[in-house]
Amino acid sequence: MHPDIRFMKRALLLAEKARGRTSPNPLVGAVVVKNGQVLAEGYHKKAGGAHAEIEALKKCGHKAKGATLYVTLEPCPHYGRTPPCVETLIKSRLSRVVIGMMDPNPLVRGKGIRLLKARGVKVRVGVLQEECERQNESYVKWIVHQRPFVILKVAATLDGMVATGQGDSKWVTSVEARQHVHQMRDQVDAILIGVNTVVRDDPRLTTRMIGKKGRDPIRIIVDGTLYIDPQRKVLNLKSKAPTWLATTHEANPVKIEEIKKKKNVDILTCRDQNGRLDLKDLLIQLGQRGVASLLVEGGPAIHSSFINERLADKVMIYYAPKLLGGGALSMFNSLRVASLKHLFVLRGLKATPIGDDMLLEGYF
Amino acid sequence: MHPDIRFMKRALLLAEKARGRTSPNPLVGAVVVKNGQVLAEGYHKKAGGAHAEIEALKKCGHKAKGATLYVTLEPCPHYGRTPPCVETLIKSRLSRVVIGMMDPNPLVRGKGIRLLKARGVKVRVGVLQEECERQNESYVKWIVHQRPFVILKVAATLDGMVATGQGDSKWVTSVEARQHVHQMRDQVDAILIGVNTVVRDDPRLTTRMIGKKGRDPIRIIVDGTLYIDPQRKVLNLKSKAPTWLATTHEANPVKIEEIKKKKNVDILTCRDQNGRLDLKDLLIQLGQRGVASLLVEGGPAIHSSFINERLADKVMIYYAPKLLGGGALSMFNSLRVASLKHLFVLRGLKATPIGDDMLLEGYF
Repeated sequence: MHPDIRFMKRALLLAEKARGRTSPNPLVGAVVVKNGQVLAEGYHKKAGGAHAEIEALKKCGHKAKGATLYVTLEPCPHYGRTPPCVETLIKSRLSRVVIGMMDPNPLVRGKGIRLLKARGVKVRVGVLQEECERQNESYVKWIVHQRPFVILKVAATLDGMVATGQGDSKWVTSVEARQHVHQMRDQVDAILIGVNTVVRDDPRLTTRMIGKKGRDPIRIIVDGTLYIDPQRKVLNLKSKAPTWLATTHEANPVKIEEIKKKKNVDILTCRDQNGRLDLKDLLIQLGQRGVASLLVEGGPAIHSSFINERLADKVMIYYAPKLLGGGALSMFNSLRVASLKHLFVLRGLKATPIGDDMLLEGYF
Repeated sequence: MHPDIRFMKRALLLAEKARGRTSPNPLVGAVVVKNGQVLAEGYHKKAGGAHAEIEALKKCGHKAKGATLYVTLEPCPHYGRTPPCVETLIKSRLSRVVIGMMDPNPLVRGKGIRLLKARGVKVRVGVLQEECERQNESYVKWIVHQRPFVILKVAATLDGMVATGQGDSKWVTSVEARQHVHQMRDQVDAILIGVNTVVRDDPRLTTRMIGKKGRDPIRIIVDGTLYIDPQRKVLNLKSKAPTWLATTHEANPVKIEEIKKKKNVDILTCRDQNGRLDLKDLLIQLGQRGVASLLVEGGPAIHSSFINERLADKVMIYYAPKLLGGGALSMFNSLRVASLKHLFVLRGLKATPIGDDMLLEGYF
């Protein structure tokens, strides 16, 4: 394996340690190498904290002179919450900087690289670029489109059913798959369900991990007419994260005021589109509030809307080794597909066994 | 890796070479080893041909004395189409025989092993037993139950749909997946579809492999009332394998006679069960005719019947990275599942990427 690949892989692994803790900042890892030896490592631990490359360079002191820095993301050329990293890199007298991916922010993209080159630092860009981009797919989506990266999560049988015809959907998938979902909740900024699921299941939507303390995501309930019963669990939780009710101008102002009095609950009023809540407007508002990743946990109606309106980026389907048959509830029952030519196509299908289940992931 | 494991793996690989060519005999591979060196290898090439262990021992001559024989299946103690292998093993003065799995035939199971031990040969049984049993899953089913091992093959979207609401199902899966199905056809004894698929698609059901000459399986059409149009391709093919029409006493005798005149076509008259062809009776007849493996290619009605009647052993679902939505035709639309407690459960789920598609396999 070429050393550039090897050390970039290490930087990717370091970056991954902070998943779920840096948003809306990206995950970044950095390794300083001299004569084939690792001098220091660093990663971006949380939003507002030191950048990965600075953290690694701090540990090197004057030894960084002549070394190579591996960093998964192009160093920033500008003042943000921290001073520009590029200046520190130049002062450290590094001889070479190897960068995984360019900064996706169209306003600064390539500026860091140009600055380094202008000051005589050798730069290589694009090492394991695809892995770096995938690692920060949420950040890339948010910084480029100002909207969260949207993941649809489904628990289904092999024949694509999520509940019986009577609506019974408890425990389709295994304990392991449900734990995996809690791990996902720990890593995303927010999760979303429709009010119908609240009515039917009264879920808590918190992160409950075995043997590890998780972080609760923001809980978002789509409820165009503010139909929700104020006694439901999601409106009366002890959680560090808030619950946001997404509604429209159809909502009863008295009920809005009543719910607003609740601790830890907020209301987002979204545009109305043919009598339904405009999901795109909701995503724009979420982007403005710094939500870079959104896990849509269903059900079929909400999932279908996200797909129909081309607002979904990724799908994660946990298939249980079970069959329910055609009389049951299909995972995306309200898709609008006129013919085989017009079906929805995904790419990059990947399978991961989880307990007795199989997780398939794909991108829109 | 322990030598026993290593050489048994090799024997499994050798056996695999003849897949699709030995039925109704099992696949068997054998390796003769002395002082850690392979003296000779052999495998069962086709029904009626030499058994794997005999083929390997022939190549060794007197050198086999004191050697170890690795064989995937217990050597036969009886006269069949060939003389008993056990006698040859004893005459070869092997010091040790390592066996993957016992003969599944309840009539001889363990006899070969007992004979070898009685004559002073050291025997180890059960090395890579699970792999050996899986390799011969069709043979095991047929020899134990006198019925073929039944595989349901489905080409579906991720949401479990096999055709649009209008019945359009062409090219759901990729070229690679379709080639994989032809490879399956080359390896099974027979394939089966319902007459409705003949009416709609007029398929040939032959094996068409790219860059390789395939073997056609027997084609079986389930057609309880003998509704088929005699001009259909499956009844007028040039193929080394016959087409069998499975029908009931409801069939018109004049049409039966007309169709029987066709070259390469035969009629199987099956019992009637509540006005439908009794699939179990069909499987018994197929078993009697030496069909050890049956690939059921659909559609949803036929697949559902096999599942409802507990006649399916395995399912192979090729998922295309596409979505069709709830208005489409679901893969097993006629399952009888009263509640989540009564759904059909599979085990041993396995995923294999095939082109852009994902093949999931599981066992009933």
